[in-house]
This record gives sequence, C-alpha cells and structure tokens, in this order.
Amino acid sequence: MSKNPPPLSKARLASLRRLTRRKSRVEDGRILLEGWHLLEAALEAGRALGVLAMTPQALAAGGANGRLLEKALDRAEAGGWIEEAELSRICGEAADQGVVAAVDWAPVGVRQVLRRAGAALADGRTPVVVAGDGLQEPGNLGTLIRLADWFGCTGVVLSSGTVDPGNPKVVRAGMGSHFHVPVAVGAALPEVVEQARRLGWWTVVAAGEGECGLRAGPPDRPVLLVVGNEARGVSPAVREAAEVRMAIPRWGRVESLNAAVAAAVFLGAWRIPGG
Amino acid sequence: MSKNPPPLSKARLASLRRLTRRKSRVEDGRILLEGWHLLEAALEAGRALGVLAMTPQALAAGGANGRLLEKALDRAEAGGWIEEAELSRICGEAADQGVVAAVDWAPVGVRQVLRRAGAALADGRTPVVVAGDGLQEPGNLGTLIRLADWFGCTGVVLSSGTVDPGNPKVVRAGMGSHFHVPVAVGAALPEVVEQARRLGWWTVVAAGEGECGLRAGPPDRPVLLVVGNEARGVSPAVREAAEVRMAIPRWGRVESLNAAVAAAVFLGAWRIPGG
Repeated sequence: MSKNPPPLSKARLASLRRLTRRKSRVEDGRILLEGWHLLEAALEAGRALGVLAMTPQALAAGGANGRLLEKALDRAEAGGWIEEAELSRICGEAADQGVVAAVDWAPVGVRQVLRRAGAALADGRTPVVVAGDGLQEPGNLGTLIRLADWFGCTGVVLSSGTVDPGNPKVVRAGMGSHFHVPVAVGAALPEVVEQARRLGWWTVVAAGEGECGLRAGPPDRPVLLVVGNEARGVSPAVREAAEVRMAIPRWGRVESLNAAVAAAVFLGAWRIPGG
Repeated sequence: MSKNPPPLSKARLASLRRLTRRKSRVEDGRILLEGWHLLEAALEAGRALGVLAMTPQALAAGGANGRLLEKALDRAEAGGWIEEAELSRICGEAADQGVVAAVDWAPVGVRQVLRRAGAALADGRTPVVVAGDGLQEPGNLGTLIRLADWFGCTGVVLSSGTVDPGNPKVVRAGMGSHFHVPVAVGAALPEVVEQARRLGWWTVVAAGEGECGLRAGPPDRPVLLVVGNEARGVSPAVREAAEVRMAIPRWGRVESLNAAVAAAVFLGAWRIPGG
C-alpha cells in the first residue's frame, strides 16, 4: 500500500473502536496502539498490524515518522485516514499524535510464563517473574511491565482482579514492553505462589513490614516477586503462601510506595552488580 | 462546627473550583485535596483547612471516615454538602470518595531546600535532594514526591518546565507526601546543579548511558539526583553541569524507565544498607 491511503471505511473504524473494550480485545486477540513510539515498537517486534488509521496531519509527517508510517502502511491489513475528531473518540487524551493501529497481542497463560522460566534456567540464567496482585491503576501496571522488560524479567503474572494489560492506558505506559515480555492474566495467585514454591522457587512478597536483607539478593534459584494493590497491598492468602515477606526500609512518613516503584527497588537491588 | 453542615454556598463552591487552576492555587497558597486519605494526611500534618465539601453520602459515613470528617469539619474554615454532580465537576474521575477540601500548601524556593540540606548536614545526616527536569506526567511527578518522602529526602526541586506539583492529579499520586517533603518549583536547573557542585555536593544525572557503579553508593557528601522528562530525559545543559552521569544497567529491550522508577532504583541502591 502506498503512502496515499483512502479515507477509512466505517466498518474499519468500528473494528478499531471496538478494541477500547476488553471483551473485544479478547475476542480479536488484538490491542490498540496509540502514537508513533508504540507503532515503532510493534513493527520492530515483527507484530502483525490490523487496521491502521491516521489523521491527515499525521499522514503529512516527514522525517522518521513519515518513514515509519510508510512501513506501517505496507505491513497493515488496511490503512486509511480519519478526522481528528474521530481519532479523539477512540484515543481520548492520547489522540495528539494522530496515529492509531490494531496489533496482534494477547496475554499468555501462567504455565507459559513458568515454562519460559524453566527454559531460562536450563540456559544458565536465573529467571525472575513479577506478579501483580489486584493492581487497579493502568499507568501503574504499564510501568510495571516496562520495568520487568528493562530488568530482563521472564514474564509478568497478574491476578484475576487486576486491570486488563490490554487496556490502552496500560499499553501506553508500557512503552512497547508488551511486545518483549509475556504477560499472563487471571492467575489464582495463592495457588501460583504455592506451586512455584513447591518447584523450588524463591517466592517473595513486597510487604509493608517484614524481613529486610534486600541487598543480600536472591538465592541462586528462580524468583517470583509479588507486588500488591495500590490500597490493600498483597492479599493475605498470597502473603501466607510466599516463602518470604520483605519490606523496603523507610526513612520518611508516607505509608507506602506504589507497586511499580516498590518493584523497581527490589529488582534494582537484586539485579545491579555490587559497586 | 457539628457534623451537620449546611449546603455549601455558591461562593464557597467557587472558592474550591478555582483551585483546579494553577494561577488560583498560586494566588491563594492553597491546593485541592480529594478523598479520605489526603484529608487524613493533611490533618495529621497539622495543615490549615479552608473550605471542606462532601456529598450527602460521605456525610453519612460511619467508622474511621466518619470520625475523620468530624475532625475535619471542626478544623475547616467552612464546611458544607454539595451534590455528587457538583463534586464531579471539581474532581473528575476522583470524585468517587465524595469529599474535597482546600488546604494550605505552596511550593518553597530552591534556596530553602538547599538550606534545609545544610541543616541536615549539620545534624549529622547526609541530605539527598531529588530534582525533576521537565516532567510532564502528573502521576509520575506525584509518585516521585512520594518516593522522596519514603526515602527521607530533604526536598524535591523542579525545573521551570515541569508540571505544577499542586495539580490535583499530582497531589493524588503524592498520597500526602506534599505535607512531608518541601517541593521547590521554577528552578533554573543548570544553575542549581552548578551551584550545588561548587558547594561540594555530589551531583548525579540519571542517564541512559554513563557510569555504572550504582551499588557503590554516594560519597559522604550531600547528593543532588536529577531525573528527566519522559521523552527527552535530562536536558543537555543539566547533564553537562553535573559531576556524574549514571546509568541503570539494562537487561531487556525497552529504551528507558520512567523518572519515578529510575529514581527508585537509585535511591534504593543508595539508601538500603548492605545485606
């Protein structure tokens, strides 16, 4: 397809708009990408693009964005331009970049993440999996997935009460990490933690109170780190099931850290080699 | 005032609503608090409350929230109930808790933060100040202030291009840390960094590339850590001015970490005692 696409048909516009709903994302195995950076990340990861839509302004983009758009139009199932108002109806606040696309993405199963960890282990690397227990704030979850990517985690596992990782706000905060790190949803976390523990994993809950020893680092076995809901923390059943409850020492007065920030402190302390 | 307040007058409602604008916050030296947790944090910190408004539902709250509301009504300049629709017009998405208040809060000057660091030093503690260079995302800034509180930082310094820390979304993400950590705004960061460096501070920029040695920790002098804008990172002039540009080692494929998460890795690595 050339860089001179037609107006997007109503049916194709609808096929984009439906991806703002979780149910449709599950049915289609697709998510919405908003903006240049995510589009680039999807192309680099070799993901299949569905419908691609852009405003006339975005279509006129030169430079790197122009080349990116050309490449994306070549790879998309269908492309077309839409009015800015239409784009805003799909993307909300995020419409300012003028480009949106459907892309193949779906969460994986919990077992897939655990199997992938087994493969890493066989490969001589110590796998680290991050689990989220009931996270509600999309930006927080996206940041957690991005962090897991940065530190080379094997995967992310989310409890059934967690916000959908395919939610466009989560995808935006993930900055393309959705295409690098497998994310499992709907996990019964107490059972996952128990199972991992039986398999010899080091299972750690980030808790407000607990052991310190963060800098000692994990023992030489696979790690499952669980961070909790913004208000309630990690649920009691998961805390019970884990081998260790570990706290980040506090100097100030605020009562808690958010989940992604807490995970950053743990992963940083574990992953960064001694000075 | 008893726990039986009148309907809020139009004038008082307007005095709340105007605090959604930065200009009015600066004029009034006040910010908007939304929800029970922030209200509690303000009361605990001994802050003066201006107008307090709640929905009839919130007014009927029992238990801890009921007691908190009673205390807040006692302390507020004026209190009254408003319809849920009115509250939503002020708080947007955050209206679900049914309570909003004006509270005394204003940013401090950069010199105040530096002076406070001098006092900490005289007191035998090593002060750490976190600076934000052009952060745009309110949730990200609020999380950074919360993190600075957790790790007992002396203050937060924000460049002139940074989102206003009094923005209700920043306050919400700060979880009450606004009342524990002084925040300076409008800083000419290259000059602040130069000045701190001349005064013998260890000035560090969180950079995509640079020295590692994160675990070695800071030398035994005051620390100024600068984290950058979500897209562009720390500006070239600030990078130049700093003594050290330090990177967090990366294992995965995503290009960057967000500012609060990067700061969490630095502060965690520095503050947490060896295992």
